[in-house]
Amino acid sequence: MMRIELSRAGGKPLPLQISEALGQRISSGLLQQGARLPSVRKLAVSLGVSQVTVSKAYADLERRGRIVRRQGLGCFVASPKDGRMEAEDYGKGRAPQIGEPKRSEAVWQSGNNEDGNDGDSRSPGRKALQKGNGARRTFAWQEDYGDYLPRAQLWRNFDYSEAEYSFHLAAIHSGLLPLKEIGEAMTTLVAKRPELMSVYGNFQGDLQLREVMTTHLGARGISLTATNLMITSGTQQGIDLVARTFVGPGDAVYLEAPSYTGAIDVFAGRGAEMIAVPMDQDGMRIDLLTRLCDRRPPKLIYTVPTFQNPSGATMSMERRQRLLELARSYRCLIVEDDPFSDLYFYSPPPASIKSIDKEGHVIYMKSFSKVLAPGCRIACVTAEGDILERLIAAKAASDLGSPLLNQLAVLPFISGQYDAYTKELRAALRSRMEQAARLLKRHAPQGVKWTLPGGGLNLWLELPQSADIGELYRRALRQGISFLPGNVCHIGEPSSSHIRLCYAQMEEEQMRRGLLFLIPLLREAITG
Amino acid sequence: MMRIELSRAGGKPLPLQISEALGQRISSGLLQQGARLPSVRKLAVSLGVSQVTVSKAYADLERRGRIVRRQGLGCFVASPKDGRMEAEDYGKGRAPQIGEPKRSEAVWQSGNNEDGNDGDSRSPGRKALQKGNGARRTFAWQEDYGDYLPRAQLWRNFDYSEAEYSFHLAAIHSGLLPLKEIGEAMTTLVAKRPELMSVYGNFQGDLQLREVMTTHLGARGISLTATNLMITSGTQQGIDLVARTFVGPGDAVYLEAPSYTGAIDVFAGRGAEMIAVPMDQDGMRIDLLTRLCDRRPPKLIYTVPTFQNPSGATMSMERRQRLLELARSYRCLIVEDDPFSDLYFYSPPPASIKSIDKEGHVIYMKSFSKVLAPGCRIACVTAEGDILERLIAAKAASDLGSPLLNQLAVLPFISGQYDAYTKELRAALRSRMEQAARLLKRHAPQGVKWTLPGGGLNLWLELPQSADIGELYRRALRQGISFLPGNVCHIGEPSSSHIRLCYAQMEEEQMRRGLLFLIPLLREAITG
Repeated sequence: MMRIELSRAGGKPLPLQISEALGQRISSGLLQQGARLPSVRKLAVSLGVSQVTVSKAYADLERRGRIVRRQGLGCFVASPKDGRMEAEDYGKGRAPQIGEPKRSEAVWQSGNNEDGNDGDSRSPGRKALQKGNGARRTFAWQEDYGDYLPRAQLWRNFDYSEAEYSFHLAAIHSGLLPLKEIGEAMTTLVAKRPELMSVYGNFQGDLQLREVMTTHLGARGISLTATNLMITSGTQQGIDLVARTFVGPGDAVYLEAPSYTGAIDVFAGRGAEMIAVPMDQDGMRIDLLTRLCDRRPPKLIYTVPTFQNPSGATMSMERRQRLLELARSYRCLIVEDDPFSDLYFYSPPPASIKSIDKEGHVIYMKSFSKVLAPGCRIACVTAEGDILERLIAAKAASDLGSPLLNQLAVLPFISGQYDAYTKELRAALRSRMEQAARLLKRHAPQGVKWTLPGGGLNLWLELPQSADIGELYRRALRQGISFLPGNVCHIGEPSSSHIRLCYAQMEEEQMRRGLLFLIPLLREAITG
Repeated sequence: MMRIELSRAGGKPLPLQISEALGQRISSGLLQQGARLPSVRKLAVSLGVSQVTVSKAYADLERRGRIVRRQGLGCFVASPKDGRMEAEDYGKGRAPQIGEPKRSEAVWQSGNNEDGNDGDSRSPGRKALQKGNGARRTFAWQEDYGDYLPRAQLWRNFDYSEAEYSFHLAAIHSGLLPLKEIGEAMTTLVAKRPELMSVYGNFQGDLQLREVMTTHLGARGISLTATNLMITSGTQQGIDLVARTFVGPGDAVYLEAPSYTGAIDVFAGRGAEMIAVPMDQDGMRIDLLTRLCDRRPPKLIYTVPTFQNPSGATMSMERRQRLLELARSYRCLIVEDDPFSDLYFYSPPPASIKSIDKEGHVIYMKSFSKVLAPGCRIACVTAEGDILERLIAAKAASDLGSPLLNQLAVLPFISGQYDAYTKELRAALRSRMEQAARLLKRHAPQGVKWTLPGGGLNLWLELPQSADIGELYRRALRQGISFLPGNVCHIGEPSSSHIRLCYAQMEEEQMRRGLLFLIPLLREAITG
């Protein structure tokens, strides 16, 4: 059983809201193939709607092949053998933009082969379900136990540790990272300050590290003091803390379309009303955002303005200014997620939105571990006024603070070699990106399109609308190749003809080989 | 501005709900002394209630001295110079129990001195507020920006790193911890497997560590497989993950009275309706719980059955069985938080509730870092069926998984020396506890009462109702002595005549000295 946030104010009909919510749970794997849905009566009672409303929602899901009705038994989540599934298309009626999802075959995400075998050893969730009917009966009571977890695409798509050719994760291969230096720092700390392992640190993060980060950001045009900065276990936690503190059911959250899966998961989990803003080469379309906000004032705007994830587009300075103006006039917050600004290939990106924010409208987040040692999970969140205080209180309730040793292990590198290191890293990543692009240009089939990113870690490939990304995804996984299907980068997970490839996750040669294996699959997907 | 969850179904009048919610924010420090409250009109609109309702709530707060009204300017959070504040007493009308709060002078928690100086360098929150009026004006828009953070006593009370005599934190002094061994493991990992710093681990936690923990729990009567176990950044995160996944506005959550501050914060943050269950020497009063559940079926029951935090009481086996029965009949979850079962002084505690759970009603949590290396932040959560899967998905959205290096650093110790180590640790802690109790017995004034705990880290002291714990708290802090005031261990933060002292946080001699400094203050508090 699940709790579904229904907006009775908005224009979207209740049956559609229910079928969308169930659809998201199905594609997240939270509702597993073959799982029985609650009876119409039960769900109607639990949601406080009429049985007719729930029946309509079920009929809609059935029509789209997401569920099947078995006479006298109820409704069940469809599996591939129940026939083709079709995903919703929320992108219709607007001009095509970067990453705009288009109607195509559904992305069937389970990664199952189609011989009727339900087992999927890659997905962490499925394993727990590999139980006999006895176990299912024992835990049957849990079916009626409500949860508040509407979407989990991060969980679903992140952890393909077994893929030989991993393109799915926006991460840098260990061979490029300064692990030796950070390891030495760690070893020194353990030897000289073993008590660091014994203490809970300050919730806000170690003061010395906060000061180093403050200087680091100051050199990038963001002037603040260490009191305005908090250390988090990665930017994912930063986004989560902001959402739990400031976003609740029905609050309007604007995001780029496409956007970061992990952010969509988090805002969905808070019951937010997410609104997608189309993009072009200069980033989020502020003109469209303005019009959307007129109708529905924003509570929060989430953006990755620089080398956007997943599209790679960078917001122009003019738009950054207009975005900040808009936040001022609506008295709302902007979350500026900045994982990549140090990873430019050609010219430095425009100044951050935070650097021009004088009234505390921007919560700026920068990951340090992503470019240094992702396993250390160290990022920072900056904000002014009461906003940061509340985030610190939320951090306390989340985990009592990030491990001190991990914080201090990255400190010397950030205050020392960081700039020299990122200079080299930029060159290495640029070379990889260009290699990947060259290979694609030479070998990829007609109809595959991409824009050369100015920085970051990802290529965002567009396939013709006819390509079946779901089938491509399954075939690639069977050959040990993982990528991120574009639909999970969208609210509502419509079908999408995009895929995201990270060129930095593997060793160079492995990346090349992986691409050469993937390209024939792209061709099949297009011609086939 | 704040969002307040109002229950329109329950019996509690709306003005009282509003004044309680505001009172909690004031005592958490989320609403600072001198802060202006929203106008009656604004708050009424934002909560969807009448202005009369809000006016009643403000009048109630004013009557209790929590806020002051300034003609023509509005209402402001009171500061000590505005006169005495009085806290609510939610404990009236029931038989006295362990830790039952009683009416007494309010606990004024800010730790401010009373000479009119508002600065408090210990509290992380206050620093950010030390700004001129200019800064306040710049960020004035934030006053109207809604948040979902009703209570933050953990944040408020945890971080007294400057106290010379620290009794406030249930933690073990570094001199007793196996930091050498864990440090060596860390150093070896960094040297041999530097790539651990570069990878995001499995969201669920490292498989090898999960297997080791599974064996560890198996030896304690909890039979499960590694698929039923997830690794979290401390138990605080485990509680938080359960709450965000399964608890929402108005859900009934039962807790012991008193209970763990951090759990109360988390459930309050989800808008739960928390219901306190009185305790006696055998732990939670299941007879009373049963009666309460009859009126309001539970969604979740949170308990620390063994050497309870803060009271030290241990739930009898018979009650454990009845509690599980009750969860079965209500088809609800029990969160069994078990930080201390390995730290018994005289005889091993009863078997865990989890060990007798056959149908997945119990989510069992055990902290490993608390007894090994708190700074490493490693605990486990176990659950069956769909429950664990959903928690893993929530963990992904929270932080993409706990740092792998920290996980693996504690692994060899848990699979090796753990039992031998805890045997020694038990003896050391028992000796400290007995010393502390001896000192109190010899020197503490008449009227101070406590029960010798059978294990764990805390002494739960009861003072006569006439004692002013707030004043005691301030005076102690001024002398560099910190303790946990009892009121923050209760829902609603009523006044309380209890204080919690941890006898393990300092070196032995320091602990003795600290107690000898504290005892005269106890006497002053009692004799007035």
